[in-house]
Amino acid sequence: MKNTPQLLKGFRDFSPKEKRARDFVMNKIVSTFQHFGFDPIETPTLEYKETIMGKYGDEADKLVYSFEDRGGRDVALRYDQTVPTARFIANNVNDLVFPFRRYQTQNVFRADKPQKGRYREFTQCDIDIFGSVDAAADAEVLACTYAAYKAIGFSDVQLLINDRQTLMSTLEQYALPGVGVFSIIQSIDKLDKQPESEVIAELVKKGLSNGMAKNALGAITSAKKSENLEEICKLAMTLGIPESNLLFSPTLARGLDYYTGMIFEVRIGGYTVGSVGGGGRYDNLIEQLCGLKMPAVGMAFGFDRTVEAATEQGLVPQDEQLPVLVTVFDDSFVQDAAEIAKTLRTKGAAVELYPGKEKLQKQLKYADKKGLRFVIIYGSNEKDKGVVVVKDLLSRTQKVLALQDIDLQDIST
Amino acid sequence: MKNTPQLLKGFRDFSPKEKRARDFVMNKIVSTFQHFGFDPIETPTLEYKETIMGKYGDEADKLVYSFEDRGGRDVALRYDQTVPTARFIANNVNDLVFPFRRYQTQNVFRADKPQKGRYREFTQCDIDIFGSVDAAADAEVLACTYAAYKAIGFSDVQLLINDRQTLMSTLEQYALPGVGVFSIIQSIDKLDKQPESEVIAELVKKGLSNGMAKNALGAITSAKKSENLEEICKLAMTLGIPESNLLFSPTLARGLDYYTGMIFEVRIGGYTVGSVGGGGRYDNLIEQLCGLKMPAVGMAFGFDRTVEAATEQGLVPQDEQLPVLVTVFDDSFVQDAAEIAKTLRTKGAAVELYPGKEKLQKQLKYADKKGLRFVIIYGSNEKDKGVVVVKDLLSRTQKVLALQDIDLQDIST
Repeated sequence: MKNTPQLLKGFRDFSPKEKRARDFVMNKIVSTFQHFGFDPIETPTLEYKETIMGKYGDEADKLVYSFEDRGGRDVALRYDQTVPTARFIANNVNDLVFPFRRYQTQNVFRADKPQKGRYREFTQCDIDIFGSVDAAADAEVLACTYAAYKAIGFSDVQLLINDRQTLMSTLEQYALPGVGVFSIIQSIDKLDKQPESEVIAELVKKGLSNGMAKNALGAITSAKKSENLEEICKLAMTLGIPESNLLFSPTLARGLDYYTGMIFEVRIGGYTVGSVGGGGRYDNLIEQLCGLKMPAVGMAFGFDRTVEAATEQGLVPQDEQLPVLVTVFDDSFVQDAAEIAKTLRTKGAAVELYPGKEKLQKQLKYADKKGLRFVIIYGSNEKDKGVVVVKDLLSRTQKVLALQDIDLQDIST
Repeated sequence: MKNTPQLLKGFRDFSPKEKRARDFVMNKIVSTFQHFGFDPIETPTLEYKETIMGKYGDEADKLVYSFEDRGGRDVALRYDQTVPTARFIANNVNDLVFPFRRYQTQNVFRADKPQKGRYREFTQCDIDIFGSVDAAADAEVLACTYAAYKAIGFSDVQLLINDRQTLMSTLEQYALPGVGVFSIIQSIDKLDKQPESEVIAELVKKGLSNGMAKNALGAITSAKKSENLEEICKLAMTLGIPESNLLFSPTLARGLDYYTGMIFEVRIGGYTVGSVGGGGRYDNLIEQLCGLKMPAVGMAFGFDRTVEAATEQGLVPQDEQLPVLVTVFDDSFVQDAAEIAKTLRTKGAAVELYPGKEKLQKQLKYADKKGLRFVIIYGSNEKDKGVVVVKDLLSRTQKVLALQDIDLQDIST
């Protein structure tokens, strides 16, 4: 016997139960994207290395999976969905209609240090609108985000929102040679995880005086909502986000340097690990990526966290997709069992015909271990009487029904 | 301006229209899998190289994408779904319930010579039942396959079926030193693409006498349905395949060497490129892959061909998922337009709020170029009268409706 092959370090298998939970959340997200008029696209897992590298700085480059293929081409695995989309837009600019609103839900790869909740392959769900500077584009992205989390079933969805422009102009006067505005923003970005004193200490370490650091924080904390943000929020509320769920957060910074306007993050009430998604406006990035002048606004779902939060809060239906098991009483009842399976499937039920002729007890144990709730039994007794037995393994009850009378209600949760 | 990045050779982007067609077909396939009680699993894109290599012979090994990662691990991209599933089963044998019926729909990677219809990344859709030698397992796979193609909408779905055992035992007497039974089978497998004379010539070239080659073909052509196949077909028909769509094909061989029993292929009436899917029983492969004794039967959909056939035959709905466009009459009507978008979404319509304030004509052109059918217009005239205009760009007609009266029927195809 060979050595058992192993799962690659930092990667995951998904069991049927896990995959069902992921599919449930994904279907809700994708339906919402479609409901908001976003178009699906798909790009390959592999790209030329030069398409991927050098886009998000040296630290990111270290995490890119790259290699030389047999044809001598330097290739790399998808690191995010924005860079390939920029390539897609540049390649198809004459066929696409702008503003172009697209969604994309594929896996990305990062050779990151594996740790709890961080894996080397994970799913991203992105929506973006390319080619519009209009506040309505920002508002559509916000409203779609809110609607998607509500569609999953979360009762308390908070969108924290801010304007990167306001942050930049407010902080300009605190910048020093060697301590740029964005460096200050990166420290301020930690305010949701660290106490103010630590953020001030970090700014002082970077070179600001204690007074300047405090003043910078004070200026940010008391900054007003920009006109741009007022317009976006008003539209987003009209589009369906309740006022109480769209919170102006003047200290929200977002770590990435490419944002140019509205920025936001999503929090789920009761889920304390952190933000489950976020995004904003980035009007210069696409030009940097592919040379095409193209304003853009979008967001990315933290899919793993969203699935985790949905599972914790009991939003994932457990039994909905599980089939009914039609047992095979013995050798002489295989055709009858197949007939019953076919009839129930025609009525719309998900059905599994037991593929074997083990003792009934073993078949029931199989159903129980798989978490199936309903089991159909049809043997000599039943045949004589023209009935079937529907066993409910959850309530440990059973019904005796004429086969033609079985209703989906009898075999669904 | 930079050079425009390019799509990697042998790989594909999918435009919104292509992706919608693929999603339509995939959703039908997956719904059918669930309807037949198959469980979903997912495995990573990357595996240890030693898990992937040496499983399907030297030719296959040459097509595997493999490289050394930054941690010095030899890794490889998914080449098929069976090998990773065998690894998954071996790793989770104590948590799984057998017989284990699973489906898996992920992309695989082969460094093949790109040519028409052949790409280096493509989608596989597999169902398999592991741990059962029962004819009911074979029949469930056949019935599920037939149902999936019917669910996509194909009117004429033919399943060609044969027994590898019969082939082997019939051909045994024609084998020679250096011309094994499987080598003869590989020639016979070409009968659906080549005339009999060419297959005979190939067998003669391999070393059989002309008479033996003819006799071998004659023996195969006149072979009878095995008892095993009789039992499987009878059950498959009870499970829903009409007798006329399940054809015993004694010359059907299937190229892969690991099949041990029932084998089958799927043909779509009117689609002449070839088989759109196939499979069979392989009772020894899993043990070879991971050391676990595990009979198995399954099938793989040729997803690209299936999408192509469905598109050719007009089965893919073109407009179903396309949104209604709510135009923005001018600056002062943005809030009104957002209000209308929200109302229509609440009623269940897929809606796009135009993210800009360009002239109405430009917005209509945008809808037209995107292939959207319905457009909502609401300006001063409409506001005064308390109505909205619903333009149908396909029939070039328009209706004037009170907003609260708009029904989904007015804006759906």
